[in-house]
Amino acid sequence: MKNKLRQISWDEFSSMDAMTKAPYMTENGRSFHVLTAQQFTRPMLEELCSLATDVRRIAKTREGSAFLQKQLFEKRAMLYFAQPSTRTYLSFYSACQIIGMQTMNVRDSSTSSEMKGESPEDSVRTFSSYADLIIMRHPAGGFAERIAWMLSNISRPVPVVNAGSGKDQHPTQALLDIYTLARSFEHTDGIDGKKIAFVGDLKRGRTVRSLAWLLTQYQGVKAYFVAPRELQIGEDILGQLDAAGMPYEISYDFEKVIPEVDAIYMTRIQDEWDVNNESSRVNTAAYHFTREHLNILGEHAVIMHPLPRRLEIDPAVDSDPRAVYWRQVRNGMWIRAALMLTIFKHDGAIIDYSREHQL
Amino acid sequence: MKNKLRQISWDEFSSMDAMTKAPYMTENGRSFHVLTAQQFTRPMLEELCSLATDVRRIAKTREGSAFLQKQLFEKRAMLYFAQPSTRTYLSFYSACQIIGMQTMNVRDSSTSSEMKGESPEDSVRTFSSYADLIIMRHPAGGFAERIAWMLSNISRPVPVVNAGSGKDQHPTQALLDIYTLARSFEHTDGIDGKKIAFVGDLKRGRTVRSLAWLLTQYQGVKAYFVAPRELQIGEDILGQLDAAGMPYEISYDFEKVIPEVDAIYMTRIQDEWDVNNESSRVNTAAYHFTREHLNILGEHAVIMHPLPRRLEIDPAVDSDPRAVYWRQVRNGMWIRAALMLTIFKHDGAIIDYSREHQL
Amino acid sequence: MKNKLRQISWDEFSSMDAMTKAPYMTENGRSFHVLTAQQFTRPMLEELCSLATDVRRIAKTREGSAFLQKQLFEKRAMLYFAQPSTRTYLSFYSACQIIGMQTMNVRDSSTSSEMKGESPEDSVRTFSSYADLIIMRHPAGGFAERIAWMLSNISRPVPVVNAGSGKDQHPTQALLDIYTLARSFEHTDGIDGKKIAFVGDLKRGRTVRSLAWLLTQYQGVKAYFVAPRELQIGEDILGQLDAAGMPYEISYDFEKVIPEVDAIYMTRIQDEWDVNNESSRVNTAAYHFTREHLNILGEHAVIMHPLPRRLEIDPAVDSDPRAVYWRQVRNGMWIRAALMLTIFKHDGAIIDYSREHQL
Repeated sequence: MKNKLRQISWDEFSSMDAMTKAPYMTENGRSFHVLTAQQFTRPMLEELCSLATDVRRIAKTREGSAFLQKQLFEKRAMLYFAQPSTRTYLSFYSACQIIGMQTMNVRDSSTSSEMKGESPEDSVRTFSSYADLIIMRHPAGGFAERIAWMLSNISRPVPVVNAGSGKDQHPTQALLDIYTLARSFEHTDGIDGKKIAFVGDLKRGRTVRSLAWLLTQYQGVKAYFVAPRELQIGEDILGQLDAAGMPYEISYDFEKVIPEVDAIYMTRIQDEWDVNNESSRVNTAAYHFTREHLNILGEHAVIMHPLPRRLEIDPAVDSDPRAVYWRQVRNGMWIRAALMLTIFKHDGAIIDYSREHQL
Repeated sequence: MKNKLRQISWDEFSSMDAMTKAPYMTENGRSFHVLTAQQFTRPMLEELCSLATDVRRIAKTREGSAFLQKQLFEKRAMLYFAQPSTRTYLSFYSACQIIGMQTMNVRDSSTSSEMKGESPEDSVRTFSSYADLIIMRHPAGGFAERIAWMLSNISRPVPVVNAGSGKDQHPTQALLDIYTLARSFEHTDGIDGKKIAFVGDLKRGRTVRSLAWLLTQYQGVKAYFVAPRELQIGEDILGQLDAAGMPYEISYDFEKVIPEVDAIYMTRIQDEWDVNNESSRVNTAAYHFTREHLNILGEHAVIMHPLPRRLEIDPAVDSDPRAVYWRQVRNGMWIRAALMLTIFKHDGAIIDYSREHQL
Repeated sequence: MKNKLRQISWDEFSSMDAMTKAPYMTENGRSFHVLTAQQFTRPMLEELCSLATDVRRIAKTREGSAFLQKQLFEKRAMLYFAQPSTRTYLSFYSACQIIGMQTMNVRDSSTSSEMKGESPEDSVRTFSSYADLIIMRHPAGGFAERIAWMLSNISRPVPVVNAGSGKDQHPTQALLDIYTLARSFEHTDGIDGKKIAFVGDLKRGRTVRSLAWLLTQYQGVKAYFVAPRELQIGEDILGQLDAAGMPYEISYDFEKVIPEVDAIYMTRIQDEWDVNNESSRVNTAAYHFTREHLNILGEHAVIMHPLPRRLEIDPAVDSDPRAVYWRQVRNGMWIRAALMLTIFKHDGAIIDYSREHQL
């Protein structure tokens, strides 16, 4: 049958760790469901990045756009965003448009009074009745997995893409970060061997956690974690990096790190997770990227940010060619388009077109 | 001219009963406006069900999907939902996508402060200016009819599909129920002669009322009304069935009825109509369909539910092949697509394609 | 490069008056950004009106609709409506559908909690990352200009269409009014030499201000400003008309003006701008258009209204052929389609098709 989640009970599946779960979401090196960053092996990452670049290049011409829009015209994606997120929503939505997939959305499950008393599983199963793909964001950790398991075990299985669930998983954000790094180091031998600094709220940012994990799949990458003590990276992540043999440094001196690294990944303070307004008592000014820092930043280094930005990066930095965070936004659209093409096995058609047209 | 509502004043039209109104909404056996269940004759029902099946089969291939999407590409439907209803909205929306009709929506007329003071008729007439079809849901009974009359009497008439108005009419829900019955009895001689139980809140469910009425058009159907005394079917409906010569039984013993019938139509308690929280004092547990009931249910019988479900059906029942309520959801999409194709006179093209491809 | 706003600093640009700004938004007689009514010269207005008529005629056939939808299929428009406006939104949305441009929307920037702390410029720049065109409505006067300047000065410039900003500019409303006048006087030698009455709240309606200004570009037009003293036209507008040499009359006698004019532009009381509920103390009954007024209105004169209407026009007037306010709504859709085709330089393709098919 279409996917491996049919072969396992929910109790068995849900009690596994992320690495053990991974093979249940894929088949033949392609994702069926996309639930965790951990499900992506290095070959899968490289194929996705290459495919995203193909899509991006093909989209540059009208003829190419028409070709892309013919890929998934007969499919419909349901964007179910129980938690608001304008930018992730728009990114997926644009990606669907690029590859011709029709969309519908449910952005606030509270609108319909008749839904009172319905189980969340029933609601999503209803939505899935109209769709060929569920792209979902939900505040409850694990809910996307539960839905994926359920939608694998019905007569018409529907793949699920996790667009952010709870505090821990946002796998497509990690993919776009990898793609941005891959593009940034396209002419400097790729991600292997690079030094990458993570700056800001490392304690609570799921972005940093997922990206750091994916980077363990590359050779010789070294991480720098630069943050005030109160917001430093968690021991759990460091344990994973130790286990993977990935070197890292903990630092409290941003200006010392800047000239040493190939990429600086800035993050904002995630004060929405504050319990007692604690972020407001942390002085983060020393961890902001200023216009002056451009002078000590390496010539080929890049500055990334998952956005939205607050005070972490001076807007005067935006026009520097090394500031790639706006390009990063569009990379998200391309990698998500690539991902959905892969789920529906249209990657081959894209690669063929790209070769034929020598892109 | 395009429709018969031009030949009659609003006062004259609005004072008619549903049966007398019926011919004003149709022309040559096709609906122009879709306002009531009563406007559908048996031949119209059979043509719609057959067309829905054609659409469903054609949609199974990419070539077929492309053909369907070419049908109404130059039309635009306005989904005007003054009352929230996620599932009806998504069903119509998906149906539009399948047949290539473009959509726009107004889902909350309160958003625009500038609209304060505008008459509801002016608002809908403005919306209709951009559209070729109005699909509307409105809390006020009769409002859809008022709009249909108005939009018949302008220089550019626009058809209106009632997607639920007030307490009484929700004609496309009745159509999808008929289609689900027709599909369920496809290999057992159709709806004629079948025994159908209605269970739950029969007093207030407009779904039951409309479906019971449509079933009077079939031969030898027998209805069973199974509900607690406080929620039993109204005398008005029974009067209509008597007049139509349709036999029925009133029952308070669900387990006695289950083995006797060909279809069980479960409904939830419509406590949104409670005046004084009266539903909470009714014990409905004896009217829930449990896993054990599967053992006494006929081999070819089906379990239906308009959804959302609360406690009426144990989720463990879902995986039984006789539980057709999830299929019922998709049937709504197919029958609505068929209905809109009919309004715009594309039914012939669908039938031709279906024959040519021997579907 | 693509537009002249790259050649000027924001401080320099923002301190200019509307006329001086105009050339920075256009190139070779085509708009790149659409920010003000003042940027449209008479040749531009005439080309847009002619193009709108071409689009309208081409859209009458299925073949023509298909041709139109092929124009901008590879472009995506972001409708960013920070201020709700159902009708302007639907008009632009429909226009995009007609010319095949894909759309996405952000209609309430407050939905996303993560956006707290992000600068408005960053938000729109993020939205623009996914789009080829920004259509924006914003309560802050000047914000659309600020965004246009910013989006001109990035590596991937994106045009901005102002769909209403603050109290002053709503250029596409002025365009649709001009187009409605042009269509109404199609067989009576056009707008030149016509007498046009503005009635109602002339003090606060930006519609009247913009339209009056555009009319100065025509020959021999005379304006009548008919309103209660408290709501009469401002001295600033009259100064502009004086400077342009356009004759006008201030009047308090509506019934005297009606038989004299070729067009009557009715407006509603804009009480949303009331500071102290002052509108409620003004008696406007003498400035309402009643059924009886039809008898004294010229045979070829027209009645316009930007809608929504309150009590300004008796609904009994609607069925008179001289009441063109419902047609005015659809004119907005056609002129906006024409405008966006022009921005993307597809006007030539439309004109060619129109000629070939002798429309």
